Amino acid sequence: MKANVHRLSMQHPGDVSALEALIVSGEIRPEEIVAVIGKTEGNGGVNDFTRGYFTQSLMGMLARHLNTPAEALLHTLPCVLSGGTEGVLSPHYLVFSRGGEHPAASAAHAGPGALAIGVAFSQPVAAEEVGRAAQIRSVAEAVVSAIADAGIRSLEDVRFVQVKCPCVTIARAQDAQRRGKAAITSDPNRSMAYARAAGAFGVGIALNELGGSADEYETALLADFSLHSPRASISSGVEIDRHEVIVLGNSPAWTGPLRIAHQPMADALDIGSVYKVLAELGILADHQVREDAAARIAGVLVKCEPDRRGRIHGQRHTMLDDTDINAQRHVRGAVGGMVASVLGDGRIFVSGGAEHQGPDGGGLLAVIAAAADTSS
Amino acid sequence: MKANVHRLSMQHPGDVSALEALIVSGEIRPEEIVAVIGKTEGNGGVNDFTRGYFTQSLMGMLARHLNTPAEALLHTLPCVLSGGTEGVLSPHYLVFSRGGEHPAASAAHAGPGALAIGVAFSQPVAAEEVGRAAQIRSVAEAVVSAIADAGIRSLEDVRFVQVKCPCVTIARAQDAQRRGKAAITSDPNRSMAYARAAGAFGVGIALNELGGSADEYETALLADFSLHSPRASISSGVEIDRHEVIVLGNSPAWTGPLRIAHQPMADALDIGSVYKVLAELGILADHQVREDAAARIAGVLVKCEPDRRGRIHGQRHTMLDDTDINAQRHVRGAVGGMVASVLGDGRIFVSGGAEHQGPDGGGLLAVIAAAADTSS
Amino acid sequence: MKANVHRLSMQHPGDVSALEALIVSGEIRPEEIVAVIGKTEGNGGVNDFTRGYFTQSLMGMLARHLNTPAEALLHTLPCVLSGGTEGVLSPHYLVFSRGGEHPAASAAHAGPGALAIGVAFSQPVAAEEVGRAAQIRSVAEAVVSAIADAGIRSLEDVRFVQVKCPCVTIARAQDAQRRGKAAITSDPNRSMAYARAAGAFGVGIALNELGGSADEYETALLADFSLHSPRASISSGVEIDRHEVIVLGNSPAWTGPLRIAHQPMADALDIGSVYKVLAELGILADHQVREDAAARIAGVLVKCEPDRRGRIHGQRHTMLDDTDINAQRHVRGAVGGMVASVLGDGRIFVSGGAEHQGPDGGGLLAVIAAAADTSS
Amino acid sequence: MKANVHRLSMQHPGDVSALEALIVSGEIRPEEIVAVIGKTEGNGGVNDFTRGYFTQSLMGMLARHLNTPAEALLHTLPCVLSGGTEGVLSPHYLVFSRGGEHPAASAAHAGPGALAIGVAFSQPVAAEEVGRAAQIRSVAEAVVSAIADAGIRSLEDVRFVQVKCPCVTIARAQDAQRRGKAAITSDPNRSMAYARAAGAFGVGIALNELGGSADEYETALLADFSLHSPRASISSGVEIDRHEVIVLGNSPAWTGPLRIAHQPMADALDIGSVYKVLAELGILADHQVREDAAARIAGVLVKCEPDRRGRIHGQRHTMLDDTDINAQRHVRGAVGGMVASVLGDGRIFVSGGAEHQGPDGGGLLAVIAAAADTSS
Repeated sequence: MKANVHRLSMQHPGDVSALEALIVSGEIRPEEIVAVIGKTEGNGGVNDFTRGYFTQSLMGMLARHLNTPAEALLHTLPCVLSGGTEGVLSPHYLVFSRGGEHPAASAAHAGPGALAIGVAFSQPVAAEEVGRAAQIRSVAEAVVSAIADAGIRSLEDVRFVQVKCPCVTIARAQDAQRRGKAAITSDPNRSMAYARAAGAFGVGIALNELGGSADEYETALLADFSLHSPRASISSGVEIDRHEVIVLGNSPAWTGPLRIAHQPMADALDIGSVYKVLAELGILADHQVREDAAARIAGVLVKCEPDRRGRIHGQRHTMLDDTDINAQRHVRGAVGGMVASVLGDGRIFVSGGAEHQGPDGGGLLAVIAAAADTSS
Repeated sequence: MKANVHRLSMQHPGDVSALEALIVSGEIRPEEIVAVIGKTEGNGGVNDFTRGYFTQSLMGMLARHLNTPAEALLHTLPCVLSGGTEGVLSPHYLVFSRGGEHPAASAAHAGPGALAIGVAFSQPVAAEEVGRAAQIRSVAEAVVSAIADAGIRSLEDVRFVQVKCPCVTIARAQDAQRRGKAAITSDPNRSMAYARAAGAFGVGIALNELGGSADEYETALLADFSLHSPRASISSGVEIDRHEVIVLGNSPAWTGPLRIAHQPMADALDIGSVYKVLAELGILADHQVREDAAARIAGVLVKCEPDRRGRIHGQRHTMLDDTDINAQRHVRGAVGGMVASVLGDGRIFVSGGAEHQGPDGGGLLAVIAAAADTSS
Repeated sequence: MKANVHRLSMQHPGDVSALEALIVSGEIRPEEIVAVIGKTEGNGGVNDFTRGYFTQSLMGMLARHLNTPAEALLHTLPCVLSGGTEGVLSPHYLVFSRGGEHPAASAAHAGPGALAIGVAFSQPVAAEEVGRAAQIRSVAEAVVSAIADAGIRSLEDVRFVQVKCPCVTIARAQDAQRRGKAAITSDPNRSMAYARAAGAFGVGIALNELGGSADEYETALLADFSLHSPRASISSGVEIDRHEVIVLGNSPAWTGPLRIAHQPMADALDIGSVYKVLAELGILADHQVREDAAARIAGVLVKCEPDRRGRIHGQRHTMLDDTDINAQRHVRGAVGGMVASVLGDGRIFVSGGAEHQGPDGGGLLAVIAAAADTSS
Repeated sequence: MKANVHRLSMQHPGDVSALEALIVSGEIRPEEIVAVIGKTEGNGGVNDFTRGYFTQSLMGMLARHLNTPAEALLHTLPCVLSGGTEGVLSPHYLVFSRGGEHPAASAAHAGPGALAIGVAFSQPVAAEEVGRAAQIRSVAEAVVSAIADAGIRSLEDVRFVQVKCPCVTIARAQDAQRRGKAAITSDPNRSMAYARAAGAFGVGIALNELGGSADEYETALLADFSLHSPRASISSGVEIDRHEVIVLGNSPAWTGPLRIAHQPMADALDIGSVYKVLAELGILADHQVREDAAARIAGVLVKCEPDRRGRIHGQRHTMLDDTDINAQRHVRGAVGGMVASVLGDGRIFVSGGAEHQGPDGGGLLAVIAAAADTSS
């Protein structure tokens, strides 16, 4: 099987014309699209409607080309969006598609393998499960499914797991109460943090980074920040009711020029992690990646956090105390500036809210790129 | 003569305790302080009062130690502040002091020379002069005075010129009208852009970067962006009525370990400019400057802009259309993230509004550092 | 002919379920819908995508029920949205529909008449026409068409004219240049203000509030603020290419319980204007409108401005200098608080940018309500 | 004894020139100033430094005129500031002074009495006491002291109690931990809400609105919102270490034309409460207070909240979900618009964070005005 990734620009959050053009021209077969990850120009908060606008536009367009109701696509095609293109970041989306024989049926090729993609949806998550062992377990199971869907046989081959988690809304909390259950919180923002934490532990357990069972980690959620997964990127939103999982890795059962590499990011100044991940992909950066090498890059995924202790390398930062600009907007702008300046390109998926995803106060970084010799 | 630069942190915009401690301990003699440049945690806009708060705190404290009225210090001690510590930036201020025999009287030493500092104030600027040839001329003259004050004999030795320019307020525009004169605009924000542009051309003329006289450049203000000075860093504010100039350079008439280097910044992703300026100072950066080398750095000054054409390296950015976050806040956060990640330190003076200061859409960068062998 | 107005809530900017429910239940016939005016929870600025999201959702839903392409509806059904539900304002939309014999064919009834609605679209507007006499003329002609569409015979009977105007984008300005024409500005925000001003003068000319021709008013655009229309409510947006006009009035040729009244608003504190417009509709307000009377109100439309002279009733306001919150967001929140507290209801259309629409520094107010005796 | 209140405008947060002019002219004797309450043009959040800037400016100026160190004034002169002049609000401050024989020594006069002012400071509050019974108790005791200072003998005569409460900072929480104590939270924002709640209960106990002792109310803090004081206005800030209390009432032991009245505000649309409080003061409002009556008003104090249940009069509001504008800024703008439009004046102290201060989702309102016949 062969994976493909198209990095497409949008003119506004309702603009999916670049993808439609590729479908019309035949470059992308719509039935081969398995996931979309994108960055829209909203504020990234609870009232960021650019995500819903893009999703409606995408599903409506694909529904026409697939002759499937848009509603049905919502439960089969993961679409993970992060709002906020602060600073030099540029609105764009990655379209993941795959074609050919299913990897489960393929024999392993020689060599290092190629980019593998798998997806999965969990069962619906009840409000009282959010931020508790049940959510950790549900994520872990869905990650296992997605790994199988990707035909990845060794957990080492998994490089990046994107999960979108439901959270608690006031309405859902009240519904749980009517059923005699109690949600961990009815504050949507707080529940989103719990959901991201549970998602990270779910990934950690599925990938054997964290030993033991989901139950053992419930009390560590948002409490023990030494525990983390260096391959989990979690977002949470009020608009979904079940987990959506996208697993990316390198597998000998897959072919094609693309490969993925990842690195933990120690803190918001860890520029070394960018050069390290590039080196792993054989991309030389003379400070900034040269244009020919830059053309090989198909996608960049970053997760980061404003350090909750208020300092970076010993110096006070002011992100957490700013009443005017949300702290996640601050950190996306700064880390986006760092990564984009190395790559020479603002089309970077940078998402905040990195609880238990990479080192505390830092985060993680993944790059998908084609091999250097693909044209030969 | 010998220059010294102290980089001090503040806990809030009214906190000058770090400087006072050095004065009390005798490490800094208050009468040797000649200029202050700082970064406060405001929004950097018209209603950023953190600048005024810091200035009042600084002048009040120095007034006590110098036994001089605070009001008098306002016209003898340039204090240039930029509001906005977006992302990883950390509130801090640079205290420039100088001691020993005046450089005009010193013989030139052998070797590359050392950091030289000169300051000057112009005559008050009338509202109708702002954004016109008269302001360009006034800045040029003050820069010449500050160069003389620094004892710098060759214009090549000037590396960075910080100018603070008065602008037009509604009240000043009305006052001009009563005198039968017309201000170029009564919009304070617009007049600040004109003032910065005039400041940049004034520096360019004084440094012979731009040939000809002030009159020839009036129509190019905010119009011909191919014209710029790579050594001018200009800010503008409603709170002053005359130009304040700080000239920094390297002069054989000065002694001490400090030197300054500068580079133009081609655009907001120009990470190469950071490595170049460090190389000129003999600071090796294995991606991020190592701790021992970082300890040599005394100050970092950056000027940048959100590209007014809406694109960086061909990709659309969204800074200029954001109604929620001011575009200058966006770009400071991104460029701050880039520079701080190379230096491993968020104490960077990053200021927006770089019209005609460095290349269009980019800006400039200066670093002050001690020589490597200072301890030997 | 009979007009109807439904005031419907939305749960988010993509939610048109309330309207769809009324269509499904048969309470609203979709082919009778002639205009929609709504308030979405965005920031109201250039990057407010809640307007596009709502429009896409509305047109998509209506397209299904009308069996017409959504694209076609965009040029026949005016949909004027204002982003920003600051403070107590509540996201909602007014659906205007009309049924029965066309008013042009109806005999006049006795009595004061009833709410009349007319709509019109102009020809496309070229970039170089924006903010010039050509745009004033185009709006005036479209208003005349909409008045005819409403079957209104006396200009006195017109009470409120909502116009949406195209503006200049960078792309359109460049296109004009290629055709040898010059746009008045390429700054979208500035051109939106010019477009609103031209719209207001177009309405004023069509309603005979302003004597003379469009040419005579070109130089007064954004210059002579003593000139204004007390019945013009203008918005501008990058997303349209022609004028959309909705005329509301009271006509003896129409039947039904609804009537509209309007008042100029002297300034952002003019609470008297609210009580006056209610009195005209026979709605008594014992400070706040009582519940039974409130139930008669079908729609409230307000236009307002942050006073550009910086003072209200002699006291300084800070809206224009705030770098953190856009001035229009400030004034919508304050005027919304005033009007909503009298009506006891946050479902109020409050739009900023009131240049030449009502008195300088103020704006205007219109209320649509049913007669008191409708149930008898 | 006689109370006086001066309502003074400021041009920026460091401007105390209006007060200094009155001191220089002899209209105010600086030693008679007992409290200052003001509204500065910041964002009202943790990083609002306009409060510190104003306080530094005020104390510095008074220190010169009183020949007392500014530091000493900080512990004897309560200065309560609220940041945020959203919408039509105007930056200003109320200077409370009193002269003549101490009220405790005065005989009661006939008639309704006049404005009485008392102040008190508590002992320093430890971090572990914040948001617990100890803080409730400390506030209650300080309120009792301030009532005595005002010479008020009947609790009915107290109309408005302004308290400023210390809160927990990260540093203070760590210090408590070193002493073996645990703060209720180390999140400054959360601790500020707890502190305001404790302040409200302290006032309620001191005024006998709430029966029983402080211990009984600890668990109701931020939990049982049916409990509230209709006369408590509480703010909290990181900059203080003890409670500051200002009690305002009407007492027969005081003379002069001023009186104070107050009303609970049922919700953010409760315009009736404004008219009621004016009626109690004999101020007739023909919708907006007429100019002659407006001249009698010396100060307006309002406390309000964005309804935490997400609805006002059954309609959804969007304040709590806005990532761009803080919810308190939203509600201050709306309630400020309502109150200012009735009074015809934007100089209103409107403060958010009204937990347990007035009805849930509403708040309270107090007006100080001179009697109508004062000139006769």
